[in-house]
Amino acid sequence: MALIVQKYGGSSVADAASIKRVAKRIAGARRAGDDVVVVVSAMGDTTDELIDLANQITPLPPSREMDILLTAGERISMSLLAMAISSLGVEAQSFTGQQAGVITDEAHGRARIIDVSPSRIQAAVDAGAVAIVAGFQGVTQHTNDVTTLGRGGSDTTAVALAAALHADVCEIYTDVDGVFTADPRIVPTARKIDRISYDEMLEMAASGAKVLVLRCVEYARRYRVPVHVRSSFSTGTGTLVTDVGTDAADAGTSLGAGAAATAAAPTSPGAGATTSSPRPGRPDRPDGAEGAGQMEQPIISGVAHDRSEAKITVVDVPDVPGKAARIFQVVAAAGVNLDMIVQNVSAASTGLTDISFTLPASDGAAATTALTEHQPDIGYTSLQYDDTIGKLSLVGAGMKSHPGVSARLFSALADAGINIEMISTSEIRISVVTRADQLDDAVRAVHTAFELDSEQDEAVVYGGTGR
Amino acid sequence: MALIVQKYGGSSVADAASIKRVAKRIAGARRAGDDVVVVVSAMGDTTDELIDLANQITPLPPSREMDILLTAGERISMSLLAMAISSLGVEAQSFTGQQAGVITDEAHGRARIIDVSPSRIQAAVDAGAVAIVAGFQGVTQHTNDVTTLGRGGSDTTAVALAAALHADVCEIYTDVDGVFTADPRIVPTARKIDRISYDEMLEMAASGAKVLVLRCVEYARRYRVPVHVRSSFSTGTGTLVTDVGTDAADAGTSLGAGAAATAAAPTSPGAGATTSSPRPGRPDRPDGAEGAGQMEQPIISGVAHDRSEAKITVVDVPDVPGKAARIFQVVAAAGVNLDMIVQNVSAASTGLTDISFTLPASDGAAATTALTEHQPDIGYTSLQYDDTIGKLSLVGAGMKSHPGVSARLFSALADAGINIEMISTSEIRISVVTRADQLDDAVRAVHTAFELDSEQDEAVVYGGTGR
Repeated sequence: MALIVQKYGGSSVADAASIKRVAKRIAGARRAGDDVVVVVSAMGDTTDELIDLANQITPLPPSREMDILLTAGERISMSLLAMAISSLGVEAQSFTGQQAGVITDEAHGRARIIDVSPSRIQAAVDAGAVAIVAGFQGVTQHTNDVTTLGRGGSDTTAVALAAALHADVCEIYTDVDGVFTADPRIVPTARKIDRISYDEMLEMAASGAKVLVLRCVEYARRYRVPVHVRSSFSTGTGTLVTDVGTDAADAGTSLGAGAAATAAAPTSPGAGATTSSPRPGRPDRPDGAEGAGQMEQPIISGVAHDRSEAKITVVDVPDVPGKAARIFQVVAAAGVNLDMIVQNVSAASTGLTDISFTLPASDGAAATTALTEHQPDIGYTSLQYDDTIGKLSLVGAGMKSHPGVSARLFSALADAGINIEMISTSEIRISVVTRADQLDDAVRAVHTAFELDSEQDEAVVYGGTGR
Repeated sequence: MALIVQKYGGSSVADAASIKRVAKRIAGARRAGDDVVVVVSAMGDTTDELIDLANQITPLPPSREMDILLTAGERISMSLLAMAISSLGVEAQSFTGQQAGVITDEAHGRARIIDVSPSRIQAAVDAGAVAIVAGFQGVTQHTNDVTTLGRGGSDTTAVALAAALHADVCEIYTDVDGVFTADPRIVPTARKIDRISYDEMLEMAASGAKVLVLRCVEYARRYRVPVHVRSSFSTGTGTLVTDVGTDAADAGTSLGAGAAATAAAPTSPGAGATTSSPRPGRPDRPDGAEGAGQMEQPIISGVAHDRSEAKITVVDVPDVPGKAARIFQVVAAAGVNLDMIVQNVSAASTGLTDISFTLPASDGAAATTALTEHQPDIGYTSLQYDDTIGKLSLVGAGMKSHPGVSARLFSALADAGINIEMISTSEIRISVVTRADQLDDAVRAVHTAFELDSEQDEAVVYGGTGR
């Protein structure tokens, strides 16, 4: 008998009929003998409708009130789902983030989980009930104020609960069959990935793959929660995210090696934060122990792409110590996270250099405003802003032990007539910036060059879940 | 500077425009220097829509889950209202029933308040903010489960909070101008009542007047909370419910005299339950101290009517001790509250008697089923069920000291050709049962006979608030 945490997104519970369908699946899992904890998002468009209501009231609603408003959405879906499961003769109870013990910091709208104490959930499960938990929400430690976790919050709730409950697996139900080698809307021959390591999934998520958000994967990696990404519309297996990835032989040693060099700083809670309610008698999973016998996995996990970034070039920066640091201080002070950074070789005759970096296009205005304000003390001559770029990332733990991956990537792009504007690498990822209008061709060319194409066209719509 | 608790029903916050309008009124009160605590119901039809959703899932939703579902409604309205007030430059924060310290028993769907500990509300008010509190909801003492208070719950929340905060007045905003001498839809010449005592209002509410529910008035009377029933669509004064009523000279002595003899058993919490956060320096209101100088008030407060009852007659009950008690035990065990009871004089020759009682028509099936089941041990011959009755109640503290009120009532009805089927009285109320189709005529005749008609037709739509 296993303990399973299942997470259903808004599209899986969009209306009464969908809720009943999901309830059947949950009741089936419970009847099969497993303990089941379910994390649920708000129904379909509920969140958008609530945001629209707030915007009818005021363009700048206080974030504390916005969180109270939005958390109404999960209250509705979780209670309806509990009703639907109960009506099938399986006991079910729903719990708010607060009742589930999801404690967060006080950053309304983008709160971070600092502790999960799911004693009520454990008690409900021990009593034989299915526990339904509101995703996306928590409560502050001292003031009991309601918070929301921001984008991908429900996935993060599910993984955090699975960690705190020492669940055997966290199943993330979505409207796609799993994680694919590329976005099937761009590459119709993209294949579903059966297994992928935390590190590879982290790089895929950081590089634009939308099926799981970065923080959720970070959380899963930190607490070694096996995550199964699967479709709520079929019973087939999806993608299993564990220690053991595409290149299984390598997985045991790649962990903790700081592979995600260019990803955002880790945002998971400090070690020991989710130590409540250990399940007695269940041994810890040995890291990487399942790696044996999977030597023949392919080198590359997949090709991710990202169209949401922009590039800023700071022209003619004096090539003296401290000037580059000053640029990045100014940008960081504006609350902007940079992605790729390239400094051109200084032209010795002028003593000047160009510094380019990419950033989320949504932060473009903030960054250029801050840099313009500090032009006198930085001493550059001009700024160039370009939001017509695309980023392609090739991810795979296997590339560490296989020389020639970069060469193969660059020649595939060259053969397709695509110019590379910037390059950055980690141990298990190579990213290149291209023109935005060449990105789709680039993804297809690289996908083929690394023999990722399936023999048949799987033609599955590939989309992300909102929260 | 006063502390005012304001309660707005669902129709006052039905959409964004209404919420903004209410926010202006609240901000105005705050700017005028008063401390303001607001209790709000769910927007317009939200509750009905949520009930409809639940019914799409299952015909018998678990009551715990139903409460979680329904309380989403106030979360939405309270946060939007706080946003709207904030956008006017007045600080506002919203609080759930739990955050406001509304502790209830565990009777989901019809929970009773057992304590109110509004320390967070007091702190918000002390900090200069308007506190918006979700009506209709509370939380259980030991399990922190969400409960709802049932019909009229938001009014009760408002009065309970006003009592716990020692507020100067509890303003109940509704879509009518106040409490009327009769339903203006039936009696176009009905007048708004300026002042009415708790006892009179209690009898009016128990007799079918829908503007305030019984439990809310009971709560207000127990804790001596002045209640101002007024329209959210105008700035005029409405009806003030206090110790001092229609017949002011009598109000001081009628209190606590057990006047509401036929009303349901008191349901307010035990004394001392709402003792938190006393406002220092505010003297207790002397009971009845405002009574002086209001000697010339009319004898009668108004004429209430009720079309929601049915009558059951148990025919040929053996006229021996214990049989009547057995009937009422059986009915009470079925969860049915009786209203009026009449036992005909026993016919000495037969040793049999008929017992009639009225009850909510919605409980008719439960009562007849229970009585039929117990026919053998009660020993009656047949049951008669009649749901085509109407009840008219004349209410006024003045009738105690004015003989002849009954005679005037009965002759007014006789003159109008209306037959009286049952009669019951309390110290300040006379109720009669008539045929349902004669009830409107009866109300008009009695209203005129007691000189309650106004000189002009006020023609205000008279309606109740749902929760």
